[in-house]
Amino acid sequence: MRRIYLAGPEVFLVNSREIGARKRAICDRYGLIGVYPADIEDIPDPARPLSEQGLALSQAMERAMRECDAMIVNLTPFRGPSADPGSAYEMGFMRALGRPVYAYSNDPRPFFERVSAFCGNAVRRRPTGEHEDRDGMTIEHFTLHDNLMLAGGVLHSSGCLITFAAPPAERYTTLTAFECCVEQAALAISSLPR
Amino acid sequence: MRRIYLAGPEVFLVNSREIGARKRAICDRYGLIGVYPADIEDIPDPARPLSEQGLALSQAMERAMRECDAMIVNLTPFRGPSADPGSAYEMGFMRALGRPVYAYSNDPRPFFERVSAFCGNAVRRRPTGEHEDRDGMTIEHFTLHDNLMLAGGVLHSSGCLITFAAPPAERYTTLTAFECCVEQAALAISSLPR
Repeated sequence: MRRIYLAGPEVFLVNSREIGARKRAICDRYGLIGVYPADIEDIPDPARPLSEQGLALSQAMERAMRECDAMIVNLTPFRGPSADPGSAYEMGFMRALGRPVYAYSNDPRPFFERVSAFCGNAVRRRPTGEHEDRDGMTIEHFTLHDNLMLAGGVLHSSGCLITFAAPPAERYTTLTAFECCVEQAALAISSLPR
Repeated sequence: MRRIYLAGPEVFLVNSREIGARKRAICDRYGLIGVYPADIEDIPDPARPLSEQGLALSQAMERAMRECDAMIVNLTPFRGPSADPGSAYEMGFMRALGRPVYAYSNDPRPFFERVSAFCGNAVRRRPTGEHEDRDGMTIEHFTLHDNLMLAGGVLHSSGCLITFAAPPAERYTTLTAFECCVEQAALAISSLPR
């Protein structure tokens, strides 16, 4: 059975393992093995220094990604207007390996609107017509869902990006858009060469 | 001469090209060719739809990364307590290709302190001892500089992470820590097999 790496910031929730179990059960219904980061069994020895434990986890997750045929990533904004940078790292990793990247976000607002809300609507227009945030940083105007590298990685890998308007309290836990990604992935990767 | 990909959120500044020129000049002094994303010459046709222009840029940058021997990435926090997700994507990409990743940040505060400041110090302690932010998300306790995938990618690739206490107004433009990375990269990658 094909293995699919399940990335996203929900690994930081207190009930992360429960969400992982729900995600894996959905994958199973579509004939895929879901590999959820918090379930990876190479748990570092808690007697080791904290930084070594963190680095050992990173190694275990990179190993797990290399063994997966595709990924599904949760791009729901995390601590700011964009995706979780750990998940973004994993997207670039899988894209460079040539694996399809399926993405979903439970916040369907356009990127411009999310950045604008993040900086308290203190958006300025430059004489060139571009908009910048309160730090003087361009707000990308490409009508993509997030930073162009993330959106490009999904689309160029032949994945897809699905958005869903979740109630705020459920934005890290609801799995409607996730299931759409599983369905797409199952259709596509079952025909991939091994 | 070895090529080094120069990632970071300063590409969003209005004087991005000037910063790129300064970065390339430093690389040149150390015998490296700096490849700065905003200088990539495959500028998409402005008559094409915006989303296509964004996707074409992502393709051009992925092509440029594949042609580089290493990267230097600016992890200075961007729109939140962590690194720019576009740069994080590029780190994962280069790491999966086996290229060394050198990183710097002009914000030396520990990750916990940055996340805590970001959520207005509304940090809670779980019964298990871990801390969570106001969204109920674990704050990583590994004493690493950022998300463990980012810190791990740097260290496992045999790169390094250098921090520098820049005045806030200069945090995206000062190149002291960048130059330390160039120096390290020049020492290391000149001895890499081609």
